Amino acid sequence: MKKINELQQIITSELEQINWNKEPHGLYEPIGYVLGMGGKRIRPALTLMACNMFSDDVQPAVNSALGLEVFHNFTLLHDDIMDRADVRRGKPTVHKKWDDNTAILSGDVMQIAAYQFITRTPEKYLKQSLDLFSITAAEICEGQQYDVDFENRDDVKADEYLEMIRLKTAVLLGCALKIGAWIGGAGEEDAQELYNFGINIGLAFQLKDDLLDVYGDEATFGKKIGGDILANKKTYMLIRALDLAEGKDAEELTKWINISDKNRSEDKIKAVTSLFNKLEIKQICEDKMLFFYSKAVANLQNVSVSENNKQELRNLAENLMYRND
Amino acid sequence: MKKINELQQIITSELEQINWNKEPHGLYEPIGYVLGMGGKRIRPALTLMACNMFSDDVQPAVNSALGLEVFHNFTLLHDDIMDRADVRRGKPTVHKKWDDNTAILSGDVMQIAAYQFITRTPEKYLKQSLDLFSITAAEICEGQQYDVDFENRDDVKADEYLEMIRLKTAVLLGCALKIGAWIGGAGEEDAQELYNFGINIGLAFQLKDDLLDVYGDEATFGKKIGGDILANKKTYMLIRALDLAEGKDAEELTKWINISDKNRSEDKIKAVTSLFNKLEIKQICEDKMLFFYSKAVANLQNVSVSENNKQELRNLAENLMYRND
Repeated sequence: MKKINELQQIITSELEQINWNKEPHGLYEPIGYVLGMGGKRIRPALTLMACNMFSDDVQPAVNSALGLEVFHNFTLLHDDIMDRADVRRGKPTVHKKWDDNTAILSGDVMQIAAYQFITRTPEKYLKQSLDLFSITAAEICEGQQYDVDFENRDDVKADEYLEMIRLKTAVLLGCALKIGAWIGGAGEEDAQELYNFGINIGLAFQLKDDLLDVYGDEATFGKKIGGDILANKKTYMLIRALDLAEGKDAEELTKWINISDKNRSEDKIKAVTSLFNKLEIKQICEDKMLFFYSKAVANLQNVSVSENNKQELRNLAENLMYRND
Repeated sequence: MKKINELQQIITSELEQINWNKEPHGLYEPIGYVLGMGGKRIRPALTLMACNMFSDDVQPAVNSALGLEVFHNFTLLHDDIMDRADVRRGKPTVHKKWDDNTAILSGDVMQIAAYQFITRTPEKYLKQSLDLFSITAAEICEGQQYDVDFENRDDVKADEYLEMIRLKTAVLLGCALKIGAWIGGAGEEDAQELYNFGINIGLAFQLKDDLLDVYGDEATFGKKIGGDILANKKTYMLIRALDLAEGKDAEELTKWINISDKNRSEDKIKAVTSLFNKLEIKQICEDKMLFFYSKAVANLQNVSVSENNKQELRNLAENLMYRND
């Protein structure tokens, strides 16, 4: 079994070999810029890892893996325009460094490039991989739409939030694993267990992200703590807090949600965090996270390969759960 | 041979059957809106027509045809954001009726929907159709990028303009014909002749558009005459006029290009048009248009099917050339 570092290395080196230095530069340069920002390359690693569980040769899965990484970065590019996010991974985003039109058009051609990589899936698995990829891609757009819709609603339920993050984040992990499994020669049941593993680990992963935004260590987290609180982002934690708060607590939470005065940012983060503490929201979120994590572990158990062949994926899942950034 | 009206009817009725009334509405409703605006459905008609030249059964080409129409409308949606165009076919554009974010995200999912239709190409032709479609889609983005780049340049050459409209407009016509021909069972040489026919007719088509913008009849053209002149759009006509104008004429043309006072719009259109007249730009543009048109006719001549089977495509080409709107 190849180690995750080795698989990530394959992806990094393949990504570096793509030539984005072509005409018209205004279209292709931003793509090289975005893909050069780095990132954990989790999705393509999952594809290669799933393939490797069933086959020693991961080469046939490399193009599909690259397609998923290019697609993921395309969604970040367009999401950053919609969210007016000016910085990603410490660098100015494309619409900030260039402009909105550049970010729109370069994103469009990135999505096409993603399909071009996916189209190089071995012919035997091409149609089914394309179908799953397209369904997944549409679901990610749906998730983004729900995320936007939720901003203007104050009655979002916990289940709606979980469905939103399933669409926006989890399905791409499931898709990455399933396509890799297919290419490795997995049977349909194993491929589906890995898909479900991806969904559950994706949900746990996003809950961890929400947790880190409040309870993370700023130095290792890489962004400012409390960003979601300041943005009134309807995370699982805020939704549960709104469910559980009563009387004075409910009043105070609502009061702080309605305060957007930048001079009171620190106070707002502190106040909401201590309400979270009082309502034991950290524990509630961690419980939910562990609920999905253990479902993922059970999915992996059901896959009919040796324990040894599951070890890397198990390690990756553990790392995602116990990470600090 | 099926008449073009019959083919357009197939497309219209298939498009009407697609259900865009699904959740989340914010994402899918604009797609139904855009596709409901109408349009000539030329691209999908070309696919069915090319298929019909080689096969009585056009049904296997319907999904590919729909994919190309959905893709074309997606490009209009995103182009309208970039061009800040508020009206299309007499109706508010998506970013105007909703907002920019909606137009970006609905466009993204439209591009995915286009790929979903193309993925339903009969399996025998799937890989090659996807490859051609993706190359074409990327070329269209390149064309749009050049179009944007040209706005900020005052040294655009006629050949650069022709290359830009080849990418932005003509390649999709070529692609539509070639995929249809393949599905109909055409040999590679015939498919390529039809591709080239599409390129040449596309170039002629765009030059006709440029001509109509200046010399069209407002009532039948459907938009205001002189829009390109007011926008200083570097059309073939303006580029050639800048090439040919000397002395006082050159000075006057440059003077008017630098006038953007809205109160002088009518004067600007009149003055530039009479400079065009003096320089015989209409004739020059018509000659170029006929040059590509006759190349297209020659391409069609080379296709190894009966004259009868070519008649509908010949009629369509003629209609595009001698249209007034």
